[in-house]
Amino acid sequence: MNNIKIAVVGLGTVGSNVVKSIESLNKSNKVNQKIQFEIIGISAKSKSKKRIIDINKYKWFDDPIDLFNFNFDVLIELIGTEKGISYNLIKKALNQNINVITANKALLAKYGNELFTIAKNNEVKLLFEAAVAGGIPIINLLKNSIFLNRINHISGILNGTTNFILSQMEKNNCTFDESLKLASEKGYAEQDPTNDIEGIDSAYKITLLSSLCYGIEINHNFSNYSGINNFDIEDIKYAKKLGYKIKLISESMLIDDQIYIDTSPKLINENHSLARVEGVLNAINIKTDHLKSLFIEGEGAGGKATSSSIIADLYELITSKKDSKLDSSLSNLKNIKSYDKNSLKRAYYFRILVKDQPGVLSKVTSILTSKNISIQTILQLNEEKINDKVPIILKTYETFEKNIQETINIISNENFIENKIVTLTIHN
Amino acid sequence: MNNIKIAVVGLGTVGSNVVKSIESLNKSNKVNQKIQFEIIGISAKSKSKKRIIDINKYKWFDDPIDLFNFNFDVLIELIGTEKGISYNLIKKALNQNINVITANKALLAKYGNELFTIAKNNEVKLLFEAAVAGGIPIINLLKNSIFLNRINHISGILNGTTNFILSQMEKNNCTFDESLKLASEKGYAEQDPTNDIEGIDSAYKITLLSSLCYGIEINHNFSNYSGINNFDIEDIKYAKKLGYKIKLISESMLIDDQIYIDTSPKLINENHSLARVEGVLNAINIKTDHLKSLFIEGEGAGGKATSSSIIADLYELITSKKDSKLDSSLSNLKNIKSYDKNSLKRAYYFRILVKDQPGVLSKVTSILTSKNISIQTILQLNEEKINDKVPIILKTYETFEKNIQETINIISNENFIENKIVTLTIHN
Repeated sequence: MNNIKIAVVGLGTVGSNVVKSIESLNKSNKVNQKIQFEIIGISAKSKSKKRIIDINKYKWFDDPIDLFNFNFDVLIELIGTEKGISYNLIKKALNQNINVITANKALLAKYGNELFTIAKNNEVKLLFEAAVAGGIPIINLLKNSIFLNRINHISGILNGTTNFILSQMEKNNCTFDESLKLASEKGYAEQDPTNDIEGIDSAYKITLLSSLCYGIEINHNFSNYSGINNFDIEDIKYAKKLGYKIKLISESMLIDDQIYIDTSPKLINENHSLARVEGVLNAINIKTDHLKSLFIEGEGAGGKATSSSIIADLYELITSKKDSKLDSSLSNLKNIKSYDKNSLKRAYYFRILVKDQPGVLSKVTSILTSKNISIQTILQLNEEKINDKVPIILKTYETFEKNIQETINIISNENFIENKIVTLTIHN
Repeated sequence: MNNIKIAVVGLGTVGSNVVKSIESLNKSNKVNQKIQFEIIGISAKSKSKKRIIDINKYKWFDDPIDLFNFNFDVLIELIGTEKGISYNLIKKALNQNINVITANKALLAKYGNELFTIAKNNEVKLLFEAAVAGGIPIINLLKNSIFLNRINHISGILNGTTNFILSQMEKNNCTFDESLKLASEKGYAEQDPTNDIEGIDSAYKITLLSSLCYGIEINHNFSNYSGINNFDIEDIKYAKKLGYKIKLISESMLIDDQIYIDTSPKLINENHSLARVEGVLNAINIKTDHLKSLFIEGEGAGGKATSSSIIADLYELITSKKDSKLDSSLSNLKNIKSYDKNSLKRAYYFRILVKDQPGVLSKVTSILTSKNISIQTILQLNEEKINDKVPIILKTYETFEKNIQETINIISNENFIENKIVTLTIHN
């Protein structure tokens, strides 16, 4: 294909930047006179919205489904609904042997198995570099650079909004609400930030990465998650005393041929590369049979950065074989079970607010000991006493989640406890 | 090609690991029953050397040139001579339409233009992921993920030996000699470490990266370099007082359609991602028209990590089109001029050891002022006085190299100066 016919649906920040990138590409010496990218039509909800591009240069479609009355090679889907119109357009395109490029992580995490299979059967591509970690080319890295590695572990910070909030809380001593408000003002948080702050957005992304890493079926139900809603600044402060930061970490690994996928706020040693990822940046760390650590960091969102990933997908369409014997296209995937997280051994952080009375510390430690939990560090912070209550901060050695839950139940019933006990896992 | 016939020449740490990786790949479920990698012959200087592989499983060639009596698809060249046998083998292979995978940065930096052209003309590939930054897939990233970006700047730490030495000096307060000795003991430095510590190895690598980034002819003469031989621990200490670390930074950018390529020890803000790269790790930072910053860090050397890059090249051979319209194969490159580094504006660090006498500080500052150099920070470290000599540490605003040289000449002639003045550029 010397002339690549493209339809772009969805013209928000990313979509508009994609059109702009394509316009400059056609003039660049890398592309000019070799290939032309021709935008055969565009479609979005509002025609009148102010954009960085002149939409009058292109054929406008009020209903994107009408695009299919014309011939084109690639659908770039940037509407981003979890099902509905995005799903219909992508499925229709693939069924008509049209390649698809999308940034729609929710849709792929939920309906990816079906859609990638259609793509495979019809010998077209369904590409999604922009769906995970914005401008970081993690998908290409997994599909090409280290495809022949055996991946042991992948972990990352996959949501810029929550990382901004946590960075803000830590650096400027702001509350969760203040930080979320600032994120909204700066355009880093959506009007309804639920998907971000509850960890759902990150969970979609680690679901997709897991399938690429381990060649397993996309099963979003396996993706455990908890978010940072109403996260308490105290924990960030106390974690720091232990030499840790708190980050919303998504991770995934195979254990005994079962898959463990998790997104949750975790303590992470301040010297770990992921601990240093600040603000809206995203980052991913990978361990393989060949590589002790491969770390990549960059912009996780934004029109220009995400557009970089969309045009990387266009480039892949042009340069890769359709019928490669070794297949990284997310079809013919293994169906495996989810690992029971209660079997996982982890180190934990505890914050227990206790009445300042004699014998409490020894009571707490004896309860932990009775549950076979060994304490690595313990801080009783008398200088933090408020209303006769004192926080006890604990870092345990590795133990089972079940032990932690049982311990919480016992300690919670003690009369020296008034508040909820906070526990967080420690990333290693 | 369902059965890929491979010849491996050079069986040091990397070569042996490559053979081992190929053995496991053939058994892995990603490869097994789809493609077989068949090693049709191996060759190395010493047959009797102890290795992690059983060489008796393969046909041994005392003279690698005899391999060409047999049919094969890929030559993996890991002998690594700058010309001689490596050059002869690679050229012969390409001329006989055999693909080549190599880790030989010196050879490609010197003879790459000729060799990539032969490869292009014969429609075979000359791949070199392992030649730059060991296990970091920077070549694939530049050739595929961000090929359609316009790259503005690339900088990196491309030599693990020197980074280990500098990290060691900084963390453990060792001298250069002590650190180099430790690097040798740990196997991080070669018997003759000249290429590493003088910056030559890094210079080869940034030469190759520059051609990929900017589509320019490989011209190693354009690659300015200076190393860290006999680097003084004092400068690491004083840089720290200013909030900087010292790293051997390779960088490259286009200025006015001319190319500037440099490798030198530089001060780098301690909050910069590259400043945090410790020990033998390598890392690269890229700025493009789409990406404010893309940072990747990993192992820069070692048998397993480098083998990961070699097998990534094998994967590329299988999956990419031979005749892609958009070409990232380093042929048909632009011939451009080298940017005159005297025209470059940089901030500088000065260490001037002066006699502890009145008026010296004002004399130094007035000389700088007379050369239009503005001082951003100045420290006169009286607590560091030794034998009546006191160091003055300066950080300037951006200025031309020419001004710096003239200033050094003037100050050096003052009678309050006894030692050589140290200047280093500051990375921004």
